[in-house]
Amino acid sequence: MDPIWKSHQAKDKSKHQSWRLKLHEIIFEADTRAGKIFDILLIVAILLSVSVVMLDSIPKMHQHYGDQLFIAEWVFTILFSIEYLLRIMTVGRPLKYITSFFGIIDFLAIVPTYLSLLFPGTQMLAVIRILRVLRIFRVLKLVQYLGEAQTLVIALKASRRKIIVFMFTVLTLVVIFGSIMYMVESDESGFESIPHGIYWAIVTLTTVGYGDIAPQTDFGRALAAIVMILGYSILAVPTGIITAELTLGAGKGKVSTQACPECSAEGHDFDAKYCKYCGSRL
Amino acid sequence: MDPIWKSHQAKDKSKHQSWRLKLHEIIFEADTRAGKIFDILLIVAILLSVSVVMLDSIPKMHQHYGDQLFIAEWVFTILFSIEYLLRIMTVGRPLKYITSFFGIIDFLAIVPTYLSLLFPGTQMLAVIRILRVLRIFRVLKLVQYLGEAQTLVIALKASRRKIIVFMFTVLTLVVIFGSIMYMVESDESGFESIPHGIYWAIVTLTTVGYGDIAPQTDFGRALAAIVMILGYSILAVPTGIITAELTLGAGKGKVSTQACPECSAEGHDFDAKYCKYCGSRL
Amino acid sequence: MDPIWKSHQAKDKSKHQSWRLKLHEIIFEADTRAGKIFDILLIVAILLSVSVVMLDSIPKMHQHYGDQLFIAEWVFTILFSIEYLLRIMTVGRPLKYITSFFGIIDFLAIVPTYLSLLFPGTQMLAVIRILRVLRIFRVLKLVQYLGEAQTLVIALKASRRKIIVFMFTVLTLVVIFGSIMYMVESDESGFESIPHGIYWAIVTLTTVGYGDIAPQTDFGRALAAIVMILGYSILAVPTGIITAELTLGAGKGKVSTQACPECSAEGHDFDAKYCKYCGSRL
Amino acid sequence: MDPIWKSHQAKDKSKHQSWRLKLHEIIFEADTRAGKIFDILLIVAILLSVSVVMLDSIPKMHQHYGDQLFIAEWVFTILFSIEYLLRIMTVGRPLKYITSFFGIIDFLAIVPTYLSLLFPGTQMLAVIRILRVLRIFRVLKLVQYLGEAQTLVIALKASRRKIIVFMFTVLTLVVIFGSIMYMVESDESGFESIPHGIYWAIVTLTTVGYGDIAPQTDFGRALAAIVMILGYSILAVPTGIITAELTLGAGKGKVSTQACPECSAEGHDFDAKYCKYCGSRL
Repeated sequence: MDPIWKSHQAKDKSKHQSWRLKLHEIIFEADTRAGKIFDILLIVAILLSVSVVMLDSIPKMHQHYGDQLFIAEWVFTILFSIEYLLRIMTVGRPLKYITSFFGIIDFLAIVPTYLSLLFPGTQMLAVIRILRVLRIFRVLKLVQYLGEAQTLVIALKASRRKIIVFMFTVLTLVVIFGSIMYMVESDESGFESIPHGIYWAIVTLTTVGYGDIAPQTDFGRALAAIVMILGYSILAVPTGIITAELTLGAGKGKVSTQACPECSAEGHDFDAKYCKYCGSRL
Repeated sequence: MDPIWKSHQAKDKSKHQSWRLKLHEIIFEADTRAGKIFDILLIVAILLSVSVVMLDSIPKMHQHYGDQLFIAEWVFTILFSIEYLLRIMTVGRPLKYITSFFGIIDFLAIVPTYLSLLFPGTQMLAVIRILRVLRIFRVLKLVQYLGEAQTLVIALKASRRKIIVFMFTVLTLVVIFGSIMYMVESDESGFESIPHGIYWAIVTLTTVGYGDIAPQTDFGRALAAIVMILGYSILAVPTGIITAELTLGAGKGKVSTQACPECSAEGHDFDAKYCKYCGSRL
Repeated sequence: MDPIWKSHQAKDKSKHQSWRLKLHEIIFEADTRAGKIFDILLIVAILLSVSVVMLDSIPKMHQHYGDQLFIAEWVFTILFSIEYLLRIMTVGRPLKYITSFFGIIDFLAIVPTYLSLLFPGTQMLAVIRILRVLRIFRVLKLVQYLGEAQTLVIALKASRRKIIVFMFTVLTLVVIFGSIMYMVESDESGFESIPHGIYWAIVTLTTVGYGDIAPQTDFGRALAAIVMILGYSILAVPTGIITAELTLGAGKGKVSTQACPECSAEGHDFDAKYCKYCGSRL
Repeated sequence: MDPIWKSHQAKDKSKHQSWRLKLHEIIFEADTRAGKIFDILLIVAILLSVSVVMLDSIPKMHQHYGDQLFIAEWVFTILFSIEYLLRIMTVGRPLKYITSFFGIIDFLAIVPTYLSLLFPGTQMLAVIRILRVLRIFRVLKLVQYLGEAQTLVIALKASRRKIIVFMFTVLTLVVIFGSIMYMVESDESGFESIPHGIYWAIVTLTTVGYGDIAPQTDFGRALAAIVMILGYSILAVPTGIITAELTLGAGKGKVSTQACPECSAEGHDFDAKYCKYCGSRL
């Protein structure tokens, strides 16, 4: 084979590589100027496209500007489709991106518009692209925000089991109270079946209280009063769980795990240089 | 007496015993494979039977599938009755089981269907069998969940008295505000009697706010505003009680596990150098 | 003067004294058997008399049993009047009792019925006697409950200023949002005046949400959404204030103020017998 | 130049100065008797003028006392205008005052009445002068209240990022659930467009629950139940954030005020025996 051709091929490949790398940096990172501009433009486009979907759902808007909104929706969808393809092409391991959280969101964000060709109405599902705005945390000082989100997630995970026990208690209460109310109240009050009763119990226990279904009999109201006071009181439980976790979690991070080499005392602050019990250097 | 017969009898008895023990292990425990499968099947049956009761309460469902649901309900009830009898037969001390929490729930879960023969409509009470699903915690890693539930129960028990004082305050407020509203507002607003006023006060103080009874006069609304802000603010009290208990309860776990070498006392702080009970060096 | 007469007089006086003391012990204390029985009977009478007032307010009850309830109400009022007079007679310093919290409540509990002779309808105010039931804490293990109530009161007092700042913020928000809504929304939505707007703002900010006054315009709804999210979020503030106070308050009570006589170290637990820093006896 | 004239000028200037200083002390400070009286009169005037605006918004009041309220409103506005001009004249650096928080509020408090000459109706905006009442904290023991407010502001600032993450999560949830409800429910239920759906989602998630828009279909109600339980549960998150911040913030105050005799470092724990920075005995 001709060595010149080979070298030409390698050059072409490296050129191609550099083109891919550069695009990757713009699309996936937010460190460079170009990357930042791209991310900000993307977020603006996402917000605009979500607004288009929302405006299109308002009858008056749809009547007057239906055609323009239709075109705008397709322009955004085609732009997002190109962006999605570029992401797959420039990323190192495409499969990993496609199955990642943002990969799935990016895909779900363009699907509804195409689907609407087959099933009219589904284009409304495109609001899911609001989740793409989560990329905004990358433009802001990413790490700090992720750290804060992490703290919340860790606290929620640590209290996972307590929350499951609590949820189970709530669901059991709701089923039992809903059923009793169905038996106590007549159909006219809106308690037409046990599922309606359970719906009422959830509306009441969470203190939402629409009032579309409300007890009319004296016994029903007495029971409802119990459900309300219960709901009002047990609200304290999830709050207590999360708060205790956040307080203790924050407390943990503030004490060093270092022990004194002389007296082995622990519990020193991070900024401590000497053991506070025996005075030897840490 | 024939010694062979005796031996046969003993064998039979031991055989009978082993049969009881095996069944006991399957029904009451969740450690063996058979026991786990039994528990999972039981939970599925419970959920199905609760669904049957719920579906039967929906007028349309009752009209179309009333007969099938009736049969399903009886099949489940007979199955649960057999299970209940087996539990009594295989357990060591039947009376203790019958009077235990789960024994009572198991009994109440089958009674409503039989009662419905005498008093039609009571079969709806069978939803109480949802409580039987609490057994699910045995199939999951039992101990951990029970531990978490325990923590919550301990926190609630420890704040028992504070909660009673709080509840008493709420009830007193509700009676007084309900009565004043009854005097201030006319019948047309829904304040037909003091109990109606108290019901309104509970609906408002717990921030449920159905709106079926609402003040119409200016003075009534001013009073209602006070009740709302009160309810909004004192919600902080039960939350504060539970949270403080949970935070401090968790803090207790931070006590050192070291026992005194002299007096074996435990519960020393991490920074303790000497036993706080006998004064010997830790 | 005849010494016999004098002695007779003294005897009579001491007899009179002992009669007063005995009655005082029965009426005011709950330590003796007689005192306990009296207190329990009193609480039963209070609850019954409050029930009588409530029942009398129900139109149907008033129609059928109006006469009986009227008589019952007067019997209770006369009994309470006699009790009030006995309290004044047997207490050491009557004026101090009359101006005390319970003295005022005891007086207000009997006044409404007498007032109803002049102004019909005021007898409903007699529900204020529900406050007399607070005596129940004396029959229960008084000290413990008072202690718990004390803890709550101390926490509330300590966060007094924070709560005033918070309340002021809430009131300012409510006035401003209520006024804007009055200008934005038309009369048909229920926003007839600024006070109506403020009432709506309180109903919404406290998440009660009756729905009797609700925005109809798009701008009004956007504003309402802001008020809701605000109300939902700032609920966290009073809760945080009370919880922090209770957590820290409870922590304080658990450390002895005793200092070590040898090394003057403080922060010992209440059950500590030896200093945890130098090992000398406390 | 004539020295007498010069001295006269200086005298006049100093006289003018002292007049300005005296007025400054009265208007801006609350330490002197005159300053306190001025501040209290000002607060009374503010509250009265806000009441005038409110009363004028009530149709009946406007009809009967419209003229008197109109005059009162103008009297207050002219008084506040004079006060505003005096403030600018007596303050050292007028521009700094005009652009300060209170400077802007003082200006906004008088503008609406003048604007109402051009655009009738805008005088209602004058309720913004309620913000001027914030000066009340200067009359009360200022420092303590400011300190408490500071603590709250610091806690809110410290949890700034966590709250942004939380708010973002809530908004995303609300957009997605609102859109799904719009697709699921028909127009008759009130779900006329996606913005209506989002409004409903906010009303439900914050547990306000007006009930003017409520799901009617079974699937819609199931979805609503999820939103309610979600809203009920995640209320725990902002509460947890603020509480943890307040508890830890208060905990910081427990650090000893003792300074190291060697290096003057502060912030030692109460149980520290040696300076944790330089190792010398405390």
